[in-house]
Amino acid sequence: MASRRKILSAGLGAAAAVMGGRRAVAGTAGTEGALGAPLLSPPYGQPSPYEASVVRKLWHPTSIPQIGVSLTPLQDLHGIITPSGLHYERHHAGVPSIDPDRHELLIHGMVHRPLMFTMDDLLRLPSVSKIHFLECSGNSQLWKAAPATATVQDTHGMLSCSEWTGVRLADLLDQAGIAPGAHWVLAEGADGAAMTRSIPLAKALDDALVAYAQNGEMLRPEQGFPLRLLLPGFEGNTNIKWLRRLKIGAAPWMTREETSKYTDIMPNTGGRARQFAFIMEVKSVVTTPSGGQTLRGHGFREIRGLAWSGRGAIKRVEVSVDGGATWRDAALQGPVLPICLTRFRLPWHWEGAPATILSRATDDHGNVQPTHDALVAERGPAAYYHYNAIHAWSLAETGVVTNAA
Amino acid sequence: MASRRKILSAGLGAAAAVMGGRRAVAGTAGTEGALGAPLLSPPYGQPSPYEASVVRKLWHPTSIPQIGVSLTPLQDLHGIITPSGLHYERHHAGVPSIDPDRHELLIHGMVHRPLMFTMDDLLRLPSVSKIHFLECSGNSQLWKAAPATATVQDTHGMLSCSEWTGVRLADLLDQAGIAPGAHWVLAEGADGAAMTRSIPLAKALDDALVAYAQNGEMLRPEQGFPLRLLLPGFEGNTNIKWLRRLKIGAAPWMTREETSKYTDIMPNTGGRARQFAFIMEVKSVVTTPSGGQTLRGHGFREIRGLAWSGRGAIKRVEVSVDGGATWRDAALQGPVLPICLTRFRLPWHWEGAPATILSRATDDHGNVQPTHDALVAERGPAAYYHYNAIHAWSLAETGVVTNAA
Repeated sequence: MASRRKILSAGLGAAAAVMGGRRAVAGTAGTEGALGAPLLSPPYGQPSPYEASVVRKLWHPTSIPQIGVSLTPLQDLHGIITPSGLHYERHHAGVPSIDPDRHELLIHGMVHRPLMFTMDDLLRLPSVSKIHFLECSGNSQLWKAAPATATVQDTHGMLSCSEWTGVRLADLLDQAGIAPGAHWVLAEGADGAAMTRSIPLAKALDDALVAYAQNGEMLRPEQGFPLRLLLPGFEGNTNIKWLRRLKIGAAPWMTREETSKYTDIMPNTGGRARQFAFIMEVKSVVTTPSGGQTLRGHGFREIRGLAWSGRGAIKRVEVSVDGGATWRDAALQGPVLPICLTRFRLPWHWEGAPATILSRATDDHGNVQPTHDALVAERGPAAYYHYNAIHAWSLAETGVVTNAA
Repeated sequence: MASRRKILSAGLGAAAAVMGGRRAVAGTAGTEGALGAPLLSPPYGQPSPYEASVVRKLWHPTSIPQIGVSLTPLQDLHGIITPSGLHYERHHAGVPSIDPDRHELLIHGMVHRPLMFTMDDLLRLPSVSKIHFLECSGNSQLWKAAPATATVQDTHGMLSCSEWTGVRLADLLDQAGIAPGAHWVLAEGADGAAMTRSIPLAKALDDALVAYAQNGEMLRPEQGFPLRLLLPGFEGNTNIKWLRRLKIGAAPWMTREETSKYTDIMPNTGGRARQFAFIMEVKSVVTTPSGGQTLRGHGFREIRGLAWSGRGAIKRVEVSVDGGATWRDAALQGPVLPICLTRFRLPWHWEGAPATILSRATDDHGNVQPTHDALVAERGPAAYYHYNAIHAWSLAETGVVTNAA
């Protein structure tokens, strides 16, 4: 308690001491005795107008408005749940409008009994809820230097976390009956691009969900309403949205998304690519302070960030404020769940000296987040996906924070 | 696995078997090859238009639109997180609009050092995130029989659950320095009614939070933006929204909300009231099937519901489909967190016979949800708040579910 008191005392340079009752009534002027807004305007609640700047940010690689990415504003978020209205998106052909009463899921191919499920069928079956992160394999394009102006929304915003509810895919496949020799599952979406990926049968039988709900309510349209695949820890694009078909087979289908896209060209191989590198590796980032923020005033402040691993639970997060010369262990907010964002926090006093702020995560399988140099050395100059290196923010004497990666 | 297979096999009366590939393409017609909606329309995402009926329901005890209750549609929700746009509300004077840059929190009274905090001050301090339910003490007005048409939104909808982030009140009070003889805290809101409650100092020093965020983003206006008190397990009205003042004192202040309201007149006492009965006791309710729903078709379906206790974690939930003659243990979805909604589930085959469906929760302190008769016998004919008895739904041969409480 003594050390906690010490931490806080220093922080209270920020809070004003009040001379015994001189300002007896605090709070905002003008609300006393005045009626506020009526109930249920609007019936489905919205954020405060004062939070209007907390929105997703758009990135269009082409001129087609249905193709692109929207990024989650991690710098403004707290805890681990991402509000569904701020979940990142990656679309290949825009958001289809699907009537759930007309939507069906077909399971066919190397099965004893092909099956077709309506949404009503699926909603009757045994359900499970899990809190898991989703991350795009293209998140953090930091293989090459990014602008100093980049925010954590720019560098890490293809990352979100929700409570998902659905049916275990293993239960559906058990009913269809897997034929001998089957090793892969083709998952197909009902968007205009018919987004299609091959998934190892072992993953489908392990922890895969056919999910219909997100953060308590039915999926948002942008997240696959009324049905999506959820493959905990696998790169986002494999978690097929608007899921309409699962075909069981002996070998992967070599779709466009696993040949021309979402593969990793590896160094010293004559241009050969690593394929089916599904798992999002251990990673972390400091969200406060982060790029674009300005620290106002010296003294106590808390360093906060997020850590995650597609292989399991976060075991440890270390934070450095001197560019990696020394490290301190951050506290992890419980419950620390597997394949889930974990919020970490470290008390800190900033007295105005320049600082370089890093975080380094370790998961419960012993995987440690690599340095940028180590990752680039391993993956080579043509790397594009699966960047998970330690990230650096630079804090100037002025309090201005910039990207240093 | 054998029993799981048996459960599901029966359920697949619902799913259509498909003759080997005759219907090779499933899903919704009309999306193939068509571009969907562009990204970021709107920038802050909204539910599917097909979910337009999943909204809060209004109850106004007077003609004043700023006074009333909005109820969470529990029958349509999954998992444990309540979407912030569907969180229940209880307002005494409407929703004030508060500029966070002008909002301050005063701590004064029996303290060594009165303090005033801006929102910036609070956001710098050590933070904590917890998933907790909130329930209005007036939830479930079932002391007397409710209409057969009542839904679970009507009977239990003043109940929601969020991930809350804020500062430990104990940390703030430690800085102010509690004077000898102090035992209570007065908490005051900045709404037009200046909603005010007396809180035991022991609670304030235990697990109370001064919360600024909910489900990842800043509080919704209806939930106290920019600052509220969060008292895990205490009746909703004590979790003062738009929190602007905390006064430390020796005795409770006997505000309107703890004399004329929010007290329990007890039987055989000559009209004396139980006061400061803060804790929401162990409780549960089946949400599927529930009042207003119609079961379509016989065979497998899952019985689902929610259990919670203001005293700790849920230890056990039993379900009966024969009006309490026999009970079976439901599965609890993990992680089972203290003072948090817990989702329970039980596989069930319904073959068309009438059924009376009940659930009974037990918490980790050994408290068991009482029967209606036992609760009424204990609390008497003038009871109004703190109803937590076992709830019954009646299922007819037609599949129609009605309230039986």
